[in-house]
Amino acid sequence: MNVTNQPQINPDVESIPYADRKKILDATRGRTDLADLSSGNPDVPMPPHIRERLREEVEAGYAPYTHYYGIPELRTRIAQYLRDTCAITVDPDSGILVTQGVQQALYLVLRTILRRGDDVIIPSPHYANYDLDPVASGGRPILVPLDEKDGFAPDPGRLERAVTPRTRAILFSNPNNPLGVTWYSSTLDTVADFARRHDLYVLADEVYRDFHPERLTSIAALPGMKERTFVFNGFSKSHFMMGLRTGYVAGPAEVIDHVKQLHYVVALCPSYLGQKAALAAFDCPRNQLEPIYAEFHSCLELLYDRVSGLPGVTCVEPDCGLYIFPNVSRSGLTSLELSLDLIEEAGVITLPGTEFGPTGEGHLRLSVCAGREQVELGVHRLERRLMELTSNSQDGGMVDE
Amino acid sequence: MNVTNQPQINPDVESIPYADRKKILDATRGRTDLADLSSGNPDVPMPPHIRERLREEVEAGYAPYTHYYGIPELRTRIAQYLRDTCAITVDPDSGILVTQGVQQALYLVLRTILRRGDDVIIPSPHYANYDLDPVASGGRPILVPLDEKDGFAPDPGRLERAVTPRTRAILFSNPNNPLGVTWYSSTLDTVADFARRHDLYVLADEVYRDFHPERLTSIAALPGMKERTFVFNGFSKSHFMMGLRTGYVAGPAEVIDHVKQLHYVVALCPSYLGQKAALAAFDCPRNQLEPIYAEFHSCLELLYDRVSGLPGVTCVEPDCGLYIFPNVSRSGLTSLELSLDLIEEAGVITLPGTEFGPTGEGHLRLSVCAGREQVELGVHRLERRLMELTSNSQDGGMVDE
Repeated sequence: MNVTNQPQINPDVESIPYADRKKILDATRGRTDLADLSSGNPDVPMPPHIRERLREEVEAGYAPYTHYYGIPELRTRIAQYLRDTCAITVDPDSGILVTQGVQQALYLVLRTILRRGDDVIIPSPHYANYDLDPVASGGRPILVPLDEKDGFAPDPGRLERAVTPRTRAILFSNPNNPLGVTWYSSTLDTVADFARRHDLYVLADEVYRDFHPERLTSIAALPGMKERTFVFNGFSKSHFMMGLRTGYVAGPAEVIDHVKQLHYVVALCPSYLGQKAALAAFDCPRNQLEPIYAEFHSCLELLYDRVSGLPGVTCVEPDCGLYIFPNVSRSGLTSLELSLDLIEEAGVITLPGTEFGPTGEGHLRLSVCAGREQVELGVHRLERRLMELTSNSQDGGMVDE
Repeated sequence: MNVTNQPQINPDVESIPYADRKKILDATRGRTDLADLSSGNPDVPMPPHIRERLREEVEAGYAPYTHYYGIPELRTRIAQYLRDTCAITVDPDSGILVTQGVQQALYLVLRTILRRGDDVIIPSPHYANYDLDPVASGGRPILVPLDEKDGFAPDPGRLERAVTPRTRAILFSNPNNPLGVTWYSSTLDTVADFARRHDLYVLADEVYRDFHPERLTSIAALPGMKERTFVFNGFSKSHFMMGLRTGYVAGPAEVIDHVKQLHYVVALCPSYLGQKAALAAFDCPRNQLEPIYAEFHSCLELLYDRVSGLPGVTCVEPDCGLYIFPNVSRSGLTSLELSLDLIEEAGVITLPGTEFGPTGEGHLRLSVCAGREQVELGVHRLERRLMELTSNSQDGGMVDE
């Protein structure tokens, strides 16, 4: 009944699907000749200021457990950031929890607010892991398609039709990975109105916020939203501290109180060095960051210009961040087939749009994380192969609309 | 139904109990005059070799996401350690997962193997968080008392009587925190026999293994145990890397496969710097570690000698590690009352035995983590106050057995 026969796995855990990414990783194994348009690992070092503070910590040499919920001074700095940058007032003691990246914070919050069979609305294509979180907690991800023709803004009618008596929350990233777009105030008003009318929690992953040149509105700052919104952010992308695994969630204290209890069981406390680096991040001179953001933005423009100029390819223009999400359905292949074909035939790694939900079919996610040289090489190889495929598929009788 | 009224919290998460430790922490707030016999944070820096390797990493400055399940080279080194030190053969790809400390590994495994209403046997007093893990996963911790008179070895009859049709696993630490004792081969044989007969998983937390001067038997190395045993270990205690949050679990591949899926959702990947420090730990010269172990062991002997010599106090002699678990019930106070009294009246922080399960009533957990000076000061204050209390309680008519 237990070990000797087929092991019994918790049904929620057993239901967590494997991503297609494994097929891509398998196809790239042992290849050192590939141009990388797939990476989520920005290929830049941490800013000098953060490295210097880490060096001091390593020299002192102590690595103690910290406060379970995050070093108090760090939570105070996070509260200041949320006030100054997002116009949200959060108590650093009762409303903020420091976690092992945004990923862990999302899991902890969803596991806390969901009961078995509850629904979470996820506008999609979406960051690949969002739909795994409800599954891992016995809930259901309800994917609501976002259309390229709407610039990937949500359709209010579709949101309404997705609501069930078990809908508990809506979850999205803004600025968006993989789509590259940002939802501004008017779109957020629509989402906020929807959440208030159906009494839903809102989970807003704002990890790309600092990449945007403007001070973006946070949905948590809209009327009646603070008490229902969890804002997720971290230092992985803004300060190139991906591997230090330091993020946080800010939200309503009466729920965060329970999230903290689960966090203690799951994690004990966040990383000491990660938190010290996060404290340094708040003091990091802007001139150590702005040039990096500018370079990635320039690469993103290059990538967008070249890819959107290809015959038969359409692409929503990105606002900021590290990704574009072009429609390449005219290749005549599925996203996964195309992605595998590009590795084999063109020597360039991309991610199939279906990695970000079934509505990503026909798209690729292209990234500038690997830097200008890889982007230039990758886009050159991509162009050549897409041209071949498009002409092949026309030869084969495809109608060029 | 959702946000506006009382928020609905997942019943498993809502059931996670708050520990008494909060009362102790509250009582110590703002006090800088307290001697510390409570800490779980060994007050020593990381060995120079590890700091040097970390310094090189920080100088290079990159902090990428790593392989989801841990840097492959690190998993290979872990497999070597398990082979050489524990006599266990584990495949580094299919049988090992690197996690945010042992705490996270325990959560992931229990959440994977438990179904709602399943039971986990926990010999108790036990490491405080063990009983929270089954609760957080909808299971039940079944505490099986360990007796001081047996040297805290498990009683086979009690184990048998604790089994139900829903018993899935037995969970313990060896060497033991908080008890300070080690279960050697003959005791492990008893536990292994019990687990085999009832077809149970065994979860063995061996995080204090390196503190023991001998090469200890791992229960996973006993006949018929490898396929049912999860071994947990990490670098927090052995290499004073508590805050780097790097641990691991090794276990049967067909279950680890699912644990990995949950890990991806909960954590994405472990800390880059934590893993680099763990790799350095495997190369750390023994002469950078042995003197620290020896000093803690000497402090532990001092603490044990002084405390066990007090009138009316009994204490099982510790084998290794950082803790003793004396019986102080003759004080006439409950463990929590005594622990709070010691803060107020004697200026010394201890942890009540009840922090480690109800069977810890009448005991304190005393630690040497804060170093010799604190141990000497703390034990002096403890002695004085326990003498006062014992004589008071005799004055008040208590029978001195």
